[in-house]
Amino acid sequence: MKSQLVFHGTLIHSRSLDDLAILENAVLVLETGGRIAAIREGVSRAKVPELLRSLKLGGEDHANVRFLRRTEFLIPGFVDTHNHAPQYAQRGLGQSMHILDWLEKVTFPNESRFSDPVYARRVYSRCVDGFLGQGITTASYYGSIHAEATKILADLCLEKGQRAFVGKCNMNRNAPDYYRDESVESSLRDTEACVAHIRCIDPEGELLKHVLTPRFAISCEDALLAGLGEIAKRNGDLPIQTHMNEAATEIEYTKTLFPGFANEVDLYAHFGLLTERSILAHCCYMSEHEMERLKELGCGVAHCPVSNMTVGGGFMAAPVRDFLRRGIKVGLGTDSGGGFSSSILDAMRQALIVSNAREVMSQGRDKGLTIPEVFYLATLGGARVCCLEDRIGSFQIGKEFDALLVNADSTGVMTMVEEDDSAKTIFDKFIMTGDDRNIDEVYVRGRLVKGGIS
Amino acid sequence: MKSQLVFHGTLIHSRSLDDLAILENAVLVLETGGRIAAIREGVSRAKVPELLRSLKLGGEDHANVRFLRRTEFLIPGFVDTHNHAPQYAQRGLGQSMHILDWLEKVTFPNESRFSDPVYARRVYSRCVDGFLGQGITTASYYGSIHAEATKILADLCLEKGQRAFVGKCNMNRNAPDYYRDESVESSLRDTEACVAHIRCIDPEGELLKHVLTPRFAISCEDALLAGLGEIAKRNGDLPIQTHMNEAATEIEYTKTLFPGFANEVDLYAHFGLLTERSILAHCCYMSEHEMERLKELGCGVAHCPVSNMTVGGGFMAAPVRDFLRRGIKVGLGTDSGGGFSSSILDAMRQALIVSNAREVMSQGRDKGLTIPEVFYLATLGGARVCCLEDRIGSFQIGKEFDALLVNADSTGVMTMVEEDDSAKTIFDKFIMTGDDRNIDEVYVRGRLVKGGIS
Repeated sequence: MKSQLVFHGTLIHSRSLDDLAILENAVLVLETGGRIAAIREGVSRAKVPELLRSLKLGGEDHANVRFLRRTEFLIPGFVDTHNHAPQYAQRGLGQSMHILDWLEKVTFPNESRFSDPVYARRVYSRCVDGFLGQGITTASYYGSIHAEATKILADLCLEKGQRAFVGKCNMNRNAPDYYRDESVESSLRDTEACVAHIRCIDPEGELLKHVLTPRFAISCEDALLAGLGEIAKRNGDLPIQTHMNEAATEIEYTKTLFPGFANEVDLYAHFGLLTERSILAHCCYMSEHEMERLKELGCGVAHCPVSNMTVGGGFMAAPVRDFLRRGIKVGLGTDSGGGFSSSILDAMRQALIVSNAREVMSQGRDKGLTIPEVFYLATLGGARVCCLEDRIGSFQIGKEFDALLVNADSTGVMTMVEEDDSAKTIFDKFIMTGDDRNIDEVYVRGRLVKGGIS
Repeated sequence: MKSQLVFHGTLIHSRSLDDLAILENAVLVLETGGRIAAIREGVSRAKVPELLRSLKLGGEDHANVRFLRRTEFLIPGFVDTHNHAPQYAQRGLGQSMHILDWLEKVTFPNESRFSDPVYARRVYSRCVDGFLGQGITTASYYGSIHAEATKILADLCLEKGQRAFVGKCNMNRNAPDYYRDESVESSLRDTEACVAHIRCIDPEGELLKHVLTPRFAISCEDALLAGLGEIAKRNGDLPIQTHMNEAATEIEYTKTLFPGFANEVDLYAHFGLLTERSILAHCCYMSEHEMERLKELGCGVAHCPVSNMTVGGGFMAAPVRDFLRRGIKVGLGTDSGGGFSSSILDAMRQALIVSNAREVMSQGRDKGLTIPEVFYLATLGGARVCCLEDRIGSFQIGKEFDALLVNADSTGVMTMVEEDDSAKTIFDKFIMTGDDRNIDEVYVRGRLVKGGIS
């Protein structure tokens, strides 16, 4: 008889943007398939066996009960809605460069190295391990232009147990000869091959999906964008990701390339690339019209506050409060390696910071975000952006168990826990000062992918 | 015969704001007293014994030569010019609160706990260890109002080997009954007692100085400020620290309390508190007049970009580029616990970010800072703010050896080093993505205070 994993202790998750739930003395029961079978609140340690019997779990004997200490708690896994896997080894380079220079001088030479599958496997292996170590249970990855490397990335996510969107990057112009798709046809063919590969290795989509990934309009001819729109139409379940309205120079250049469109939202929508499965990175400069259209189309925004303030040259972060007020879906992205950090905790902190700056810029109209709100963005908000909110993002019966076991008392740099700290205080200290050393265990679909007693 | 410590490898330090020196195949020789005796550049490993003989060090036999690997390098220790030791256990709490609320609701109740010497010793011990672990070899600490706790902090810095300015905090009004100095007289008496204690335990000032620490004008009556100015006058060697022009509410309130002064610079100068030994935290809002006066008076600025964007309510960071252009001394402060992070690396990154925002705000006039510039602020710039530039801040013959041995290849989250990375690339990766795990060894005056083979 297989034992079921049961946790007893503090669970913290978002029920919505402004509803952070802290469940103390809670019991969470996992099904063997990795789904959450039961959650009960306010159960004393002594009453756990009785509860398990009532749930017909056969008592503590057949359940593997983990009693969490006061300084431990469970939170949902982090969702990184925007991440460039082939930039993993360049994080921190090219700070303060403008986006088009940064691509040409730092990024394209670097990404071109992924034509070598041996190199790709080495870096991607470090990348997936690194992000799992940071508690990122779901990542939406841009790959390089190379089909083979992109398949390797998908293989590694599956093997290591990370939930991921993986996309071969499409770009057939305004890029150096040594790093661009040879033709529209080859770009689309490679994309279809990657879609097929991922369907082959994960037919039920338990962990993986291919994500259509036109880099941005500057690097894609009309026919390529149209071809990707066609693939999206034929495959209604495929997510789509691209960069949108990141920096003034990029926006201006896009307009010269597509004089028929007044703005980027209309442009991408025209090619069938804006659906409720679209993940749009940045969205720093958005007109009223564009925001309204995003809302109508149901697209999600990947807010990347770290890269917005360091690479790209705009030094302007998205108007997140405004998006949230309008009901536009928003998640967080590390944007590694434009963003120097591969930590969603850093992205949460920077999201707070840039929202404070937005509060000043808007003369107080757009209030800064709170810790519960940035936590929502990093978990349930990100799940919604990925259209995965029925499966992950919070602790709910029937959802899959993507979770982090946080240990606030680990060796590291997190603010020390004091005897009279409440669960909320310990949580705040973790969010603002903890790091990967405080994430003792990481679960995806109930599978332990970091830590634990092995 | 006592052996002398010698390093061979890469040394990186700032010779000035815009001159980052990367010395490869360098040899650095320490005197037994902790001073730097010799530095040579471009010495192959094979030539080291010969060099040591020529330096009359008796050859490798009598010198303990550390050959650094390609992924290791030495940098000067970090200087934290603004740090509240009694807030160590509250880092991350009270985000986005306005400064006066944050003091009343979070900070004063917390700092009042340091009336208990047992509690003070426990937290301060963690605090000094924590900052040394982060590579902070020099810290300018605000203490609580309590003389006994402040003496304990000084004792711990000396014992653990951290170079520090330690100040009993002065505040006798606009603070709750349970946490303020009883009278001007008691506040000054306690201050003198702390000055005397530090002179007693470190008579030569090898590591320690008392720093006069009026919290800010809001919490000090005129007579208290005047009394501290008198102490400063009688003790020309004592540094002085306070908060200046941090947030709009604070500035307004100060004006109502001191209607005779048009601004804070004139106010503090009037009481004799602005000298070349003054360390002024924040300086976010500075008029032309105030900047000119700071320059004339030779005061230094402790730039605290993390707290400026998260606590205090101004959400506005100092115009650092403008200060630097005028020749005003600038260093970095973690401002722990207003700043959530106790890492100077985080302060450096946030200094980059807020300087980028300042570039946008000034329509490009005040260019964003670069990695070499923020590194200067964290090392030699901070040393100048503390008037310690003759002793620390860079590698120079005769200076004391306050240094960090960085290991770019340590387990952690730093961007992986690639085979063809230059020393500058490895350095950039460390500054932008490394953390305390990459700081293998920390030296203060030649004494190993973190790591090493023990």
